[in-house]
Amino acid sequence: MKYCSECGSDQLLIQIPEGDNRPRHICANCGMIYYQNPKVITGCLVQHQGKVLLCQRAIEPRYGLWTIPAGFMENQETLQQAAMRETWEEAQAKVTALRLYALFSIPYISQVYVMFLAQLSPENPTFAAGTESLAVDLFDENSIPWEKLAFTVIKTTLTHYFQDQKTGQFPMRIGEIVDSTVSISAVIA
Amino acid sequence: MKYCSECGSDQLLIQIPEGDNRPRHICANCGMIYYQNPKVITGCLVQHQGKVLLCQRAIEPRYGLWTIPAGFMENQETLQQAAMRETWEEAQAKVTALRLYALFSIPYISQVYVMFLAQLSPENPTFAAGTESLAVDLFDENSIPWEKLAFTVIKTTLTHYFQDQKTGQFPMRIGEIVDSTVSISAVIA
Repeated sequence: MKYCSECGSDQLLIQIPEGDNRPRHICANCGMIYYQNPKVITGCLVQHQGKVLLCQRAIEPRYGLWTIPAGFMENQETLQQAAMRETWEEAQAKVTALRLYALFSIPYISQVYVMFLAQLSPENPTFAAGTESLAVDLFDENSIPWEKLAFTVIKTTLTHYFQDQKTGQFPMRIGEIVDSTVSISAVIA
Repeated sequence: MKYCSECGSDQLLIQIPEGDNRPRHICANCGMIYYQNPKVITGCLVQHQGKVLLCQRAIEPRYGLWTIPAGFMENQETLQQAAMRETWEEAQAKVTALRLYALFSIPYISQVYVMFLAQLSPENPTFAAGTESLAVDLFDENSIPWEKLAFTVIKTTLTHYFQDQKTGQFPMRIGEIVDSTVSISAVIA
């Protein structure tokens, strides 16, 4: 950030505003204070006949690697609306029966990751690559491209999923990822 | 937003970027695209001897009304760290045993609200008004200032809490608030 987006001044300081306790961009000309906050990533782990839906990324970062359909929550959405929209955009899939499955804080990239378990629509169980995907396909545990997954949080979520598939219980997990190390702080049945 | 914060130009357009599907601020001079995303509010419903801790707001909005300690999650924090920090800043209280209790989408103000149930620290069960609070106190169901609560989501969370107190079960609730109407989509035991 080089210019104040309110007055156009280049007199931007980084300092702690009065009454605050952390540095912010502040405009020395008009006094505007700029806050930056974590972003929410949400998506669906889509199940169909014992398999899950993965997308091969057609965009950076991690072009060519595999992920589950997920992305930035937008203003004026609910979490579920955002997760369904991302699933449609990236995998052209309609889903039902959303259930909260994972809530991860990823502080080093200032993201909160909210993942729902969902079912591919029984009436219309189709999918296809959206504009941000090279390919979309269903995978079981053995066919998952484990060495070509895009993000630690995706590998973690898929690992939990296939553990849960063996027990038939899919509890929600709360955790955090720091330096690629996953810590689970709670499992809610 | 009136000026590009990267190049200082006032040639800002609101249009849909190529490959996107919703309007963004775009700089016609340098091409910078500005995204706005929902913010996460997190805090603690702090319990102590059957009562809960509320803060009387010393700031706008809702100056003078009562709320639970909560606020904007900051970059580089986990959800739990943010909830504990807000509880310290607003109520000068140390808490333990955080448990996820409520996850609400509030799309009309583009917020996601993540509330933890917590215990006032047994070693040091003290509290006091932080700089953003006029007063802080413990309330049971009958003494809660029900008509002077600051936000719908607070009233909802407290209502659930005192229902749960009667059963001794405190399941997590997922829901949304649209036009002050609360919809619960899931209760996870």
